[in-house]
Amino acid sequence: MAKFKDSTVEDIDLALKDSQKSFRIYKKKTLKERAAFLYGIAKQLDQNASSLIQIAAQETNLQPARLQSELTRTIWQLNSYGAAGEEGSWLEVRISKNGPGAEKTFDLRKMLVPLGPVVVFGASNFPFAYSTAGGDTASALAAGCTVVVKAHPAHAETSEMVAALIKKAATACGLPDGVFIHVHGAAVEVGEALVKHDLTKAVGFTGSFEGGKALFDLANLRRIPIPVFAEMGSVNPVFILPEKLKTSADDIAAMYAISITQSAGQFCTNPGILVGIESEDLENLKSKLAKKISMVPPEKMLHPGIAKSFQHKRAAALGVPGVEVAGVFSCPVGADESIPTLAEVNADVFLKNPLLHKEVFGPFSMLIKCRDMKQMLQVTAAMEGQLTCSLMATDNEVKQNQELVDALTDICGRFVLNGVPTGVEVVQAMHHGGPFPATTDSRFTAVGSDAIKRFARPVCFQNWSNDLLPEELKNENPSGIWRMVNNKLTLHEVTP
Amino acid sequence: MAKFKDSTVEDIDLALKDSQKSFRIYKKKTLKERAAFLYGIAKQLDQNASSLIQIAAQETNLQPARLQSELTRTIWQLNSYGAAGEEGSWLEVRISKNGPGAEKTFDLRKMLVPLGPVVVFGASNFPFAYSTAGGDTASALAAGCTVVVKAHPAHAETSEMVAALIKKAATACGLPDGVFIHVHGAAVEVGEALVKHDLTKAVGFTGSFEGGKALFDLANLRRIPIPVFAEMGSVNPVFILPEKLKTSADDIAAMYAISITQSAGQFCTNPGILVGIESEDLENLKSKLAKKISMVPPEKMLHPGIAKSFQHKRAAALGVPGVEVAGVFSCPVGADESIPTLAEVNADVFLKNPLLHKEVFGPFSMLIKCRDMKQMLQVTAAMEGQLTCSLMATDNEVKQNQELVDALTDICGRFVLNGVPTGVEVVQAMHHGGPFPATTDSRFTAVGSDAIKRFARPVCFQNWSNDLLPEELKNENPSGIWRMVNNKLTLHEVTP
Repeated sequence: MAKFKDSTVEDIDLALKDSQKSFRIYKKKTLKERAAFLYGIAKQLDQNASSLIQIAAQETNLQPARLQSELTRTIWQLNSYGAAGEEGSWLEVRISKNGPGAEKTFDLRKMLVPLGPVVVFGASNFPFAYSTAGGDTASALAAGCTVVVKAHPAHAETSEMVAALIKKAATACGLPDGVFIHVHGAAVEVGEALVKHDLTKAVGFTGSFEGGKALFDLANLRRIPIPVFAEMGSVNPVFILPEKLKTSADDIAAMYAISITQSAGQFCTNPGILVGIESEDLENLKSKLAKKISMVPPEKMLHPGIAKSFQHKRAAALGVPGVEVAGVFSCPVGADESIPTLAEVNADVFLKNPLLHKEVFGPFSMLIKCRDMKQMLQVTAAMEGQLTCSLMATDNEVKQNQELVDALTDICGRFVLNGVPTGVEVVQAMHHGGPFPATTDSRFTAVGSDAIKRFARPVCFQNWSNDLLPEELKNENPSGIWRMVNNKLTLHEVTP
Repeated sequence: MAKFKDSTVEDIDLALKDSQKSFRIYKKKTLKERAAFLYGIAKQLDQNASSLIQIAAQETNLQPARLQSELTRTIWQLNSYGAAGEEGSWLEVRISKNGPGAEKTFDLRKMLVPLGPVVVFGASNFPFAYSTAGGDTASALAAGCTVVVKAHPAHAETSEMVAALIKKAATACGLPDGVFIHVHGAAVEVGEALVKHDLTKAVGFTGSFEGGKALFDLANLRRIPIPVFAEMGSVNPVFILPEKLKTSADDIAAMYAISITQSAGQFCTNPGILVGIESEDLENLKSKLAKKISMVPPEKMLHPGIAKSFQHKRAAALGVPGVEVAGVFSCPVGADESIPTLAEVNADVFLKNPLLHKEVFGPFSMLIKCRDMKQMLQVTAAMEGQLTCSLMATDNEVKQNQELVDALTDICGRFVLNGVPTGVEVVQAMHHGGPFPATTDSRFTAVGSDAIKRFARPVCFQNWSNDLLPEELKNENPSGIWRMVNNKLTLHEVTP
């Protein structure tokens, strides 16, 4: 890690100035040109897959097969965000030529424009997909913003290599070098300086609550506050209803054993809490799940800091009186390794201990046992905002428990029925976000091409003549994009 | 004003609890039912127009004709936001059934859902259009949120009357009474308690920078931060280029004399700064504009506090060495009256005095005289975020001065060519917003039906069977709305 020197305040100032200078050029590029850049990055990653995976495996302890699938996902993201950028409906073009009433009205045409230089903080658990050339970078570039990435110190060399490939793609596309800038910073001061810089216009972050909230607060205290899109993880509660449990305990145990432990549980959508109503069936599920989890061998975690934090938070949760271990891998584990664990606790204890509502990042889940549906609703009401909620229920149970369904909808960004929350598919209908503290802005997604909209804002052009307007707003619709013209969606041109 | 007692902390707690309770019912109403409520409010306002205008005229000193047109605008807003709500494309429905690659993928369906109870602070300068039944209330209700309005103390009686009409419409639509709640509060503590309440999920505000920024800071310091949409006004700079000036000085003087002084300049889009390049033509424009402004008789301002603030800020600006009065109404004016004023200053002085960049709310504008285009660009670079920028230029000048055009686009929400910024048309293509400090969130508009989106967030339903899904996401598309299905916009149903 000491291989790369932290950027100084002066380095960062130069980086943002360069980014701003390049922004003035890059924002004028057409949708097609921006997309070509994203496709170019994807191609570079693809061509250098084996060396990328080799270095990332050394730095992160993640298995090569897992890294290969993550790299494939990263390439897919770049290509699909590029395509969505080019398709153009994200620009939300509106053209209004008929105002209210009969009086003469204005010609008003609105579209989204890029915000400016975006600072991206990569995630430790996704060295490719949510780091240097990951979702935040791809969506900011698709929006027409320039990007400054702070390498995650836990995979700085992978980040350095990816950054070089992005720069190669920029050169191949004839873009200024400052369209993408890569800096290093193990010290928090580097991140703070990036967020505080006057020219920074938005921030993308994936990581811990403490880290994301600190950046959010910093950004709001600026002379000119800026948006921070911090995706800070959650406990992703899973609610299990009796009728479903009766017929599906084996399936539930099988799918959740994997969801809780895969990649050493190092996913922000890892299900950290299971909620059920006390019964023999629930005890049966607990035994099956506990047995499966206790057979999952420990894995080396991403880095010693994450392992230490996992062990510390796990111990704190297990230390709460009333919390019991239901299943755990029983042989001694290494210092940097995970300990797959299923804990259990009564809802009464859970409701009284806010500590138990917090994420234990790693292969750890806790079964909350409720007396009845009334108490399950109390548990729901006590929950914080979540990236996901999952419900294991028959169709009949969904219909009969609308109060629960409503309450869960209110606290989450994605609502999974009879499935597991892990596995965040990169498609437009994905919403990877959720009410605070899952994220700092519940209105935007970090996954799927709608993520592009985080880095843009509307500008309305009033009474501009056709040849002076941006291409996307011209009468002829030369970009061929969907536009709202007088409140109707259309691909047609506008009659002058 | 003392007629209405300030709400206590207990009143506010009850109000928000009632609002939350009603939200659970109201959010389940169909788009059509929500629209019917908005149409119902519009009808009530229309039927009670003459008494509304009479009371508002007494409270605000605004002319009945101006109030009549504002009421018409308010009715139009309710009807058009209702229609846009019903049309449903604001829900941003996305359905993805084809994931990346060939493997089996999830059924993912996403739509916007309402945030919850919204607190609205009305504007003193628009007792109808941006107050009790104004744009924020209309857009929050269209989104499916319930609303708590704090009456503006400067027109509390008008607000009380409008609130009663909204409640009447709610009853007629069979909605719970708590769907709309009206509270009074002359003291800032009332507003603070509303913003800090745990059940409040978003805030709409129109008013001063000081007021909006205080609420924004308060909301960010909450245990769970919430979005604040504060529209805080701006100086709305107007840039005048030489070629246009040569041929259009008379037109410019005529339209800007009106834009600067109408309704005593009490508009957030009032043009407070004019920027030109020193020349005989500019002196000529200045003389014409000064003459016209000096002939506009003073008017009684909205309330004594606004008149005092206007006089104070005007005096402070005129007190800066180098600032001169170019034209002013010369007879003595009353204590609560406006003083239409055109000031002038060299760009050198302007650039050194941040005080001169601040809004003087009222009929006051300052001509900034630049040496050349280089200095005009410096003035642009020194400007804060704006609701609007205006450019008076020939087509040729627009093409020749792309650096200026780009810089102005970067700092504003609406860019007017050869017109005036006042006159904010209520259509979907309007953007009434802009970079901080014009607003606290440049990504959303306060005028036009896209304002609805401020009060909603996406939720994704994963693997729900068709009959359990919300109507808007069902295969059959029973609401008949535009949806993005596998990245393509369509009105068609989805093949299961």
